[in-house]
Amino acid sequence: MSWEENVRKVTPYVPGEQPKRKDIIKLNTNECPYPPSKKVREALLAANADELRLYPDPDALELRESLAQAYGVKKEQIFVGVGSDDVLAMAFQTFFNSSKPILFPDITYSFYEVWADLFRIPFQIQPLDENFHIRAQDYRKENGGIIFPNPNAPTGVCEPLSLIEEIVRENPDSVVIVDEAYIDFGGMSALPLTEKYDNLLIVQTFSKSRALAGMRIGFAIGNEKLISYLSDVKFSFNSYTMNRLVLTAGKACVEDQDYFKLCTGKIKVTRERVKESLRKLGFSFPDSYGNFLFVTHKEIPAKELFEALKAEGIYVRYFNRPRTDNYLRITVGTDEEMDTLLEFLKNYRNR
Amino acid sequence: MSWEENVRKVTPYVPGEQPKRKDIIKLNTNECPYPPSKKVREALLAANADELRLYPDPDALELRESLAQAYGVKKEQIFVGVGSDDVLAMAFQTFFNSSKPILFPDITYSFYEVWADLFRIPFQIQPLDENFHIRAQDYRKENGGIIFPNPNAPTGVCEPLSLIEEIVRENPDSVVIVDEAYIDFGGMSALPLTEKYDNLLIVQTFSKSRALAGMRIGFAIGNEKLISYLSDVKFSFNSYTMNRLVLTAGKACVEDQDYFKLCTGKIKVTRERVKESLRKLGFSFPDSYGNFLFVTHKEIPAKELFEALKAEGIYVRYFNRPRTDNYLRITVGTDEEMDTLLEFLKNYRNR
Repeated sequence: MSWEENVRKVTPYVPGEQPKRKDIIKLNTNECPYPPSKKVREALLAANADELRLYPDPDALELRESLAQAYGVKKEQIFVGVGSDDVLAMAFQTFFNSSKPILFPDITYSFYEVWADLFRIPFQIQPLDENFHIRAQDYRKENGGIIFPNPNAPTGVCEPLSLIEEIVRENPDSVVIVDEAYIDFGGMSALPLTEKYDNLLIVQTFSKSRALAGMRIGFAIGNEKLISYLSDVKFSFNSYTMNRLVLTAGKACVEDQDYFKLCTGKIKVTRERVKESLRKLGFSFPDSYGNFLFVTHKEIPAKELFEALKAEGIYVRYFNRPRTDNYLRITVGTDEEMDTLLEFLKNYRNR
Repeated sequence: MSWEENVRKVTPYVPGEQPKRKDIIKLNTNECPYPPSKKVREALLAANADELRLYPDPDALELRESLAQAYGVKKEQIFVGVGSDDVLAMAFQTFFNSSKPILFPDITYSFYEVWADLFRIPFQIQPLDENFHIRAQDYRKENGGIIFPNPNAPTGVCEPLSLIEEIVRENPDSVVIVDEAYIDFGGMSALPLTEKYDNLLIVQTFSKSRALAGMRIGFAIGNEKLISYLSDVKFSFNSYTMNRLVLTAGKACVEDQDYFKLCTGKIKVTRERVKESLRKLGFSFPDSYGNFLFVTHKEIPAKELFEALKAEGIYVRYFNRPRTDNYLRITVGTDEEMDTLLEFLKNYRNR
């Protein structure tokens, strides 16, 4: 016997590569290709470094107030965390606390399974249909909670609000979490449904549409009771997770809605253009509502293309998992980056 | 039945007040009274805000390398987190994974009990002796892990390395965590013992001696195997907890060892002077090795004094718990702040 017998052993999640090289085209982690709002830089430069000796506001009040205003809800309906991973991990621990299995799709954000294992939450995987869509009837069974991303990752498929409402309505005894990390690129947020259903939690992030992946800010919106349960668990874990500069940057970022609209608008235009070009090159893909495309080619194996792109300094994401092992997830970058990618793909096909 | 039945209900930890008023003397959360190193401000000003669109380095490599160099260990022996609360919470989940109870003192950092409850870890509380010291024999029984702060909080009592070594040596089947949040104010770190014992984990923080409470940085040092288990759990929880500006500020801070020594030196000198003045005013206290004093008065009840100080705009900490409900924890502030405090106490006694 040794101390090692008492150690929790886990299979850690492997995040997308963050290469130190700066000369690559980085289309592998769905970051925003544009810098954050100038207001963020101004707010950070105006921050008083001497005050960093003091703890931050554990309630993150100013940031929550800005978010409440932006989304037309009360500040008591807002929870913030260290990226949406932190928010989701807290939500798993808070709301998925029964012995019944939680339900989520087979093709989805791979962290759900990792958290379920880590927190010893039983789960049952529900296969998407052949077009990567959720079937509402799969979520019509006894469960300890439900979670899915909308738009889904890594497929980009977006479900209509009617389907989400059906699932939420039919599961009044479970909390349903809709992970809307990619909602700002054209999907319809389920936020309005939170007024009608007290078992619906929406989770969003600053890492994609708000160009602040480097600052780590995620948030949840739901009815006040849900949010207060979530806050209680967070406060028993670590009271001060949002540092002073995060609070400063986050607030400035939310308040610049014009830039937010400009950025997400540009990305959508680029995405639609790239869809057309990819189709012409023989690629097919579900119609993505995210800032990425999930593509497969009738002739070129995904893994081969992944390696060829990497050799060229173009990083995309390849998931070697059932049903998706012939797909690549490609982040929508700047127009220039996408043109370089398209040019390479054209030549590769004709090589 | 409703979704609320599946919710984890916890009694949240209540952190020390963070009043919004700026005209108070804040001696309630053991922050450093001096600003962080100027190098921190310079590094933050030099940071490129445009790069905040990109995820931070999940390995926090540069920060870990700076810490490794400062403490003379390998970078593989360093784990970093969002304050020592994050590091400790991860360590509880990683190392206290048996059905046997973990052991910690009755008077100690109140989060230990909160985490044990949250993570459903059984625990057995070991009373300190009448002088608030740990008795090594209390930790000579079957257990699933051991944790204590050294110096202890909120008492300030520091144990000699011989006692720590005895506990670590006698418990080869458990991980022993020494929470050294306050070690830089005069105590002897157990760090050298990590070379000899692979079951010893040291946890420290940037929030006290390094004047960066507002940035949230904590770290652990131990043998490579311990650190790798801890990292695996962290990576399955949230890969990107340390944001770009935290990594920048943390590195600059660690590299300015001169300022660190100057600051902690000044605080120690002030503390010793205040001890003498408090004794003359009829206060008694364990001999503190922290940046705070844990005081009781033979005539004035602690709760009464706490309220009187607060009314005067001087915030200290009062813990209404068994054995410590007639004590106040007073952070060591600047000389000027302590003089104001002492003057008030003198007048209060003579009122």
